[in-house]
This record gives sequence, structure tokens and C-alpha cells, in this order.
Amino acid sequence: MVSFSQQTYAARGEAHSHPVAKELFAIMERKQSNLSLAADVSTKSELLALADKVGPYICVLKTHIDVISDFDQDLVAQLQALAAKHDFLIFEDRKFADIGNTVKLQYGGGVYRIADWAHITNCHVIPGEGIIQGLAEVGVPKGRGLLLLAEMSSKGMLATGAYTDKNVEMAVRNEFVIGFIGSKRFTEERDLITMTPGVGLHAAGDALGQQYRTPELIVTENGSDIIIVGRGIYGAGKDPVVEAKRYRDAGWAAYLNRLGKQ
Amino acid sequence: MVSFSQQTYAARGEAHSHPVAKELFAIMERKQSNLSLAADVSTKSELLALADKVGPYICVLKTHIDVISDFDQDLVAQLQALAAKHDFLIFEDRKFADIGNTVKLQYGGGVYRIADWAHITNCHVIPGEGIIQGLAEVGVPKGRGLLLLAEMSSKGMLATGAYTDKNVEMAVRNEFVIGFIGSKRFTEERDLITMTPGVGLHAAGDALGQQYRTPELIVTENGSDIIIVGRGIYGAGKDPVVEAKRYRDAGWAAYLNRLGKQ
Repeated sequence: MVSFSQQTYAARGEAHSHPVAKELFAIMERKQSNLSLAADVSTKSELLALADKVGPYICVLKTHIDVISDFDQDLVAQLQALAAKHDFLIFEDRKFADIGNTVKLQYGGGVYRIADWAHITNCHVIPGEGIIQGLAEVGVPKGRGLLLLAEMSSKGMLATGAYTDKNVEMAVRNEFVIGFIGSKRFTEERDLITMTPGVGLHAAGDALGQQYRTPELIVTENGSDIIIVGRGIYGAGKDPVVEAKRYRDAGWAAYLNRLGKQ
Repeated sequence: MVSFSQQTYAARGEAHSHPVAKELFAIMERKQSNLSLAADVSTKSELLALADKVGPYICVLKTHIDVISDFDQDLVAQLQALAAKHDFLIFEDRKFADIGNTVKLQYGGGVYRIADWAHITNCHVIPGEGIIQGLAEVGVPKGRGLLLLAEMSSKGMLATGAYTDKNVEMAVRNEFVIGFIGSKRFTEERDLITMTPGVGLHAAGDALGQQYRTPELIVTENGSDIIIVGRGIYGAGKDPVVEAKRYRDAGWAAYLNRLGKQ
């Protein structure tokens, strides 16, 4: 069998059984983008302005809804409208990390009602497989998808070795899981999508342990599918549209290189 | 040196350098309670009613603020008033699990502004030690304390062995950390408080992997300091005041047994 990494996003979308994965691959192909924006701003107006500006160049908008100081339901409605206008999915990077009974309440309820609007969310499996089951009880009926945090991009992170392997095992046997946060393709047992944070065109880091890798390393060599870029696009002194185009082009070129088309 | 488990809460409070740990031990001694209520209800009125009823019997109110569907700033004000009225601390069980730069924003900002009202919060160290540094930048100036999730109570959880050991090492060297979520005393290197979830007077579990252990096992034998009880107190058909008294008495008796006083 040809590795999933050697197949086009279009072919993988056609073959995929999960509605969110199917839609995501279709968007990637339509927009020729494997770029996700990590929109870590702290007000509603900043988030909406950024999503509207960068929206045309991304396949996924990654949010931390709980850092928005003036969150309200209108923000959700406007984000959904922008997702429709610019053709992207919304990924709430909640990093659920509690027992099944609690994450059910956190995912479906509270002020945010994440399951009502986020096409994708993610979780750590450190509480055991019950966390996936709890989230699935809420997310499956709403047609949502889940990513597991098989690895992280920060210095000294402990998601390695046997822990990463457990993530892969759980992902393979839980249909609700559409992929991973991690640095590479992890398995050929089924088509699980890898999204990689900590991607930068120039290697560097921040003072709190974040580390950066290039699109070529992540997509071409490691076989990851989507690059997640934050401060590289909207950091101080940057033009988000210019940077988003650069990252979109770099991510897509890395994908074409992987396919041997360039 | 005498193990911290063999010292009274009063003596440990007097000797402790961290203001939150000091206050917590003093409350435990005053109220003769090592009971924390896990208040996993989903509305403001339920949370306030439960905290007011059970408040006299607990040392810590453990919240999941993000499951409250009608959260507002008035809830925070009322919770703080109840904490003063009944003499307990508030522990927001947020289980932060992201890189340092993100948890700073999540802890200090957003709609919840957790650092403004929660005396205690907690985190997984899976992103590496940067998560503690990020949280400390927000919490230390506000006089808050942090627990590390060294272990969990759910079935198949992956916080074990070398992972637990890493938690202990990080706790010992970070002053902001006042203790652990776990099942036992982990170290004598400094006085770190262990709080244990999944405690029940009758061993059982739920359908999503939660497992229960008795106060005697946790406090007397394992040397943990605080028992966290949720559905055992306010579950269907239970009188929360009756159950809170029972758990407070059972937890305190287990502590006295540990000291050899009974």
C-alpha cells in the first residue's frame, strides 16, 4: 500500500470515512493550503479582524477561546460566518485533560459550548482512554472530530516514547479521533491527520520553552499534514496577510515536494 | 527528621513558607477538616447553594468554572463571599496543559480570570517545566499556589512511574508549587501537600473510568493530606450536609489515626 504521505490530500479526502477529515482535505485541496493559524489574541475584535484577514489563506483557524476577555455568543456567530465566507474549519485547542465525566461537561456545556461550534478539538490522553469516550459522547452526535496530543513542541515536554505510542494505539481504535498534534506521520493503520505547532520559517524559540521547526522538515521529511503558525504570522511588526501567504506557499511547496511533483 | 505525614497540620502550617499552604493548614486545623468538595454542577445557583450548604465542613471548594452555563462575575463575587463566610479556599481544577505562553493568557485572562479568585489551581507538566514558569508569572504576584497532577484516579491513566517522578522533581524546585494531585505523599524534600480525588466511602466507579478509594487507604496508609469528594456528597438521592459531615469525620479520623492519636 502507498503511504498516506504519498497520496494527495484530494485522494485522501475522497477515501476518508470521517466527515470532518473529508471536509478538511477538500478545503486543503480547494485552497491549496495546509496552513492553520494559531490565533492567540485576547479580544473579540482582534480575533475577528485576524480571522477575516488571514482566512483566505488557511484551512484551519485554531482558537483558544478562553483567552478572549470579551467572549460572547456573538463572537461564535461571527466566527462561524467567517468560516463559511473564507472556507476554513475551526479547531478549538482546548487540550482537554480530565476524566471522562468532567470533559463531557466542559466540552458540551459551560459558557463556551465548544462542541456547538468547533469542528475539531483536542485532548491529552493522560487520564486514560475514558477521556476519548467522554468527549465522543458529546462530539460524535454533532459530527465533530478529535485530535490527540501525541507530542508537543515545547522544551522538555514529556509526550514521548511509550506515551506517544499509547496515543497512536488509542487513535487507531477510536473512530472519533481524526488525527494528532505531533511532529510527523505516526501510523499507516488508518489515515490519521497530523497537525504540527511550533512551525517557523526561521528556527528560534521564546522565553517560555516554545521551539520552532521549518515546514520542509515537518511536511516533506516527517510527513505531517498541516502546519500551525501563530506569532510567525501576526507577531509584532508583521503584516499578517503577507506572512500568511508566505507560510501557505511554504507549506504547500513542502507538500508538493513530498509528493515528488516539484 | 520526622516525616511530614507524622506532623500535625497545625505544625506544618506554622513551619510553611508559602502563604496559601500556611492558610490552608490553618483552616484544616480550625475546622478539623481535610475534606475538599468537588462541586461539579452546571449552574450558578446550584454551585452557590451547594457551596453554602457544604461550606462549613470543607477546607477547599474545588470548582470547574467552565462547566457553569450561566457564569458571570457576580458568581465569582458570591463564591468569594462564601469562602470568607465559611472559611475555605477555592481551587479551580483547570488542569492547565499547554505551553507557558498560552497558559499565562488562560490563567490570567479570558472571561474567567482564574488567577483573580482561585487561591489554588493545577496543571499537567506534560508540556515541560515551561508551564510552571508561565503560570508562576501570573500567580506568584497574586499570592496563588499551584498543584501538579502527579497521578490521576481514572482507569488506565498514564501519569505513572517516571512521569510521576518528573512531577516530584519539578515541584521540589519550583516555589510556586504547593503540592500534588495524587494518591500519596511523594517526597520529604519539602512539605508538599497531596490532594486525592476519587475518594469514596464505598469502593466503586463510574462508566467513564473513574475509580474510588477509601479515606483510610488514602490518608492513614498513603499519607495524602486532603480527600476530594464529589458525587459521593451531592449525587442523586443524597443529602449533601449529611454526606459532607460523614466524609469530613472519616477524613479527620483517618488523619488522627495517622498521627497515632486514636
